Amino acid sequence: MQAVRIVSHEGAGRLEVSEVARPTARADRVRVRVRAAGLNRADVLQKRGRYPAPPGAPADIPGLEFAGEVDQVGEEGSMWRFGQRVFGITAGGAQAEYVVVPESHLAEIPQGLSFEEAAAVPEVFITAHDALFTQAGLRTGESVLIHAVGSGVGTAAAQLARAAGAGAVYGTARTKEKVERAKEFGMDKGFVVADDPRAFALAVNGWTKGEGVNVVLDLVGSSYLEANLEALALHGRLLLVGTLGGSSAPLSFRHVMGKRLQVIGTVLRARSVEEKSAAVRRFAAEVVPLFARGLVRTVIDRTFDLKDVAAAYDHLESNETFGKVVLRVLGAGR
Amino acid sequence: MQAVRIVSHEGAGRLEVSEVARPTARADRVRVRVRAAGLNRADVLQKRGRYPAPPGAPADIPGLEFAGEVDQVGEEGSMWRFGQRVFGITAGGAQAEYVVVPESHLAEIPQGLSFEEAAAVPEVFITAHDALFTQAGLRTGESVLIHAVGSGVGTAAAQLARAAGAGAVYGTARTKEKVERAKEFGMDKGFVVADDPRAFALAVNGWTKGEGVNVVLDLVGSSYLEANLEALALHGRLLLVGTLGGSSAPLSFRHVMGKRLQVIGTVLRARSVEEKSAAVRRFAAEVVPLFARGLVRTVIDRTFDLKDVAAAYDHLESNETFGKVVLRVLGAGR
Repeated sequence: MQAVRIVSHEGAGRLEVSEVARPTARADRVRVRVRAAGLNRADVLQKRGRYPAPPGAPADIPGLEFAGEVDQVGEEGSMWRFGQRVFGITAGGAQAEYVVVPESHLAEIPQGLSFEEAAAVPEVFITAHDALFTQAGLRTGESVLIHAVGSGVGTAAAQLARAAGAGAVYGTARTKEKVERAKEFGMDKGFVVADDPRAFALAVNGWTKGEGVNVVLDLVGSSYLEANLEALALHGRLLLVGTLGGSSAPLSFRHVMGKRLQVIGTVLRARSVEEKSAAVRRFAAEVVPLFARGLVRTVIDRTFDLKDVAAAYDHLESNETFGKVVLRVLGAGR
Repeated sequence: MQAVRIVSHEGAGRLEVSEVARPTARADRVRVRVRAAGLNRADVLQKRGRYPAPPGAPADIPGLEFAGEVDQVGEEGSMWRFGQRVFGITAGGAQAEYVVVPESHLAEIPQGLSFEEAAAVPEVFITAHDALFTQAGLRTGESVLIHAVGSGVGTAAAQLARAAGAGAVYGTARTKEKVERAKEFGMDKGFVVADDPRAFALAVNGWTKGEGVNVVLDLVGSSYLEANLEALALHGRLLLVGTLGGSSAPLSFRHVMGKRLQVIGTVLRARSVEEKSAAVRRFAAEVVPLFARGLVRTVIDRTFDLKDVAAAYDHLESNETFGKVVLRVLGAGR
């Protein structure tokens, strides 16, 4: 089969599409004929050698999410049959014509979603849903601040918060254009972050009349930590979902103890098979129906053919994307 | 009535016992005839002018916990009758002959506990129970690391963790004597912390064969943050219950995200009446029966008469105490 491969090249990584052996599904595994695969920032880090694949995942084939058709079911498989349209997550290897995953890491694609649209869904919607609801326990009427609101996870989180009756959805981005576009996806008010992150805490203070927000979803990381703690209300929860740079930042004990805050770290990729199964089940039960009802939708910035994978990665790395970048894998379509 | 009062004295604070008006209980408040009152580190901070009483609490009478008898019930009171032996918490004013508190902030003293023993219980057992179980969700078989294990909260936490079936109870203290004595209160293994906090993380690593602990209860604060994060297992929870100095410390995003940790700040005193009521109800239901069954016990370092309050504070500030310092308020006893 054809697969994207990371070729080590003087310390950095280079991508090529090459022929590799097609994997076989055994036990409770399922082989999916991939029709489209989403790109994620973790793929870029893996290409650069800064995010090695966890044990069990292909070391040199990137790709954490996919949409396609069930192609072969292992002898213990019981959930899926040949030809079903499915999307799901994997710890690696999705940017290829075939991928093998545990059957519990798949969900059925709702009607009305193309393979390309579906491939843009699992990673960001599972991450956002797990962070906002399973971990932060966001409740109706509560307010949420979403950083990098124009990213894949950001647009997913804004839509999910809106669909779940959040009291207010605030967002930040690096450009005015992204902030404006995010309003189409459930964001009430947005702020363009320049050099000083403290400025967004002041904006939140104004929007919430000094109360602060109940939940912050942070995809940026260390440079935002202090301002995030400032922006939170009593009993607020800060979800650390990503970090674009910097491995540590000062934690203010006055904020954390005085407001009784929770700082919660989360990643999806490194979780055990069982934990991912639980997250996928909640996604299938609580998020997929929102697509069917039109309450949330895919946000695709651009789609590339598999052969143009290098250009696709370059485009994602430009930081000028809004929503997701997707790879088309042969005859994709309905 | 007689009450301890903080008298401002050239920037610092001085304590004196003086005559003040006896308060009256209205609405759902209850006046308690105080027989004994516990000392807490917050009292010392308040005396130094570094921890002002929250709104509604007496500004100059310290004291967060007490044991005594119901003396007068407000017109909306329904839970208590004259003469009942009760202990409870307040945001201030307990180091006096009478204190007025919401009826829901009281619990009945179990048989076999003297007023002095009972006065040493509420603040530290409610704090430890709320932190370990309500907030950290400690489960049977899980391991816990308790800093300042010889303190009032530390000895309470070690006993509660043991009584609740913790898999292992580890502790740290500043002296070998405290570590040895803590073994009488449920601690399995202890470590004497000298200058470098990293050393306790190494000890935990050895004790847990590299797995780390599930919960850390930290009464020390900023200087322990990095080592606490190192000592935690996957999905570990760090409870920040106190800070002896330093208002911030670097937070390692690698640890927090990589191990999916939770950092949770908590204080008892600043909580709303409703939140305190909930904590006291859980204390009455889940902790008081453990005293009755002999599974946990009061740890009193020393008792002082009310008139010797200055000496009592000096003794607590010496940091040489093990367990609680208690003030006797007139004819205390069974």
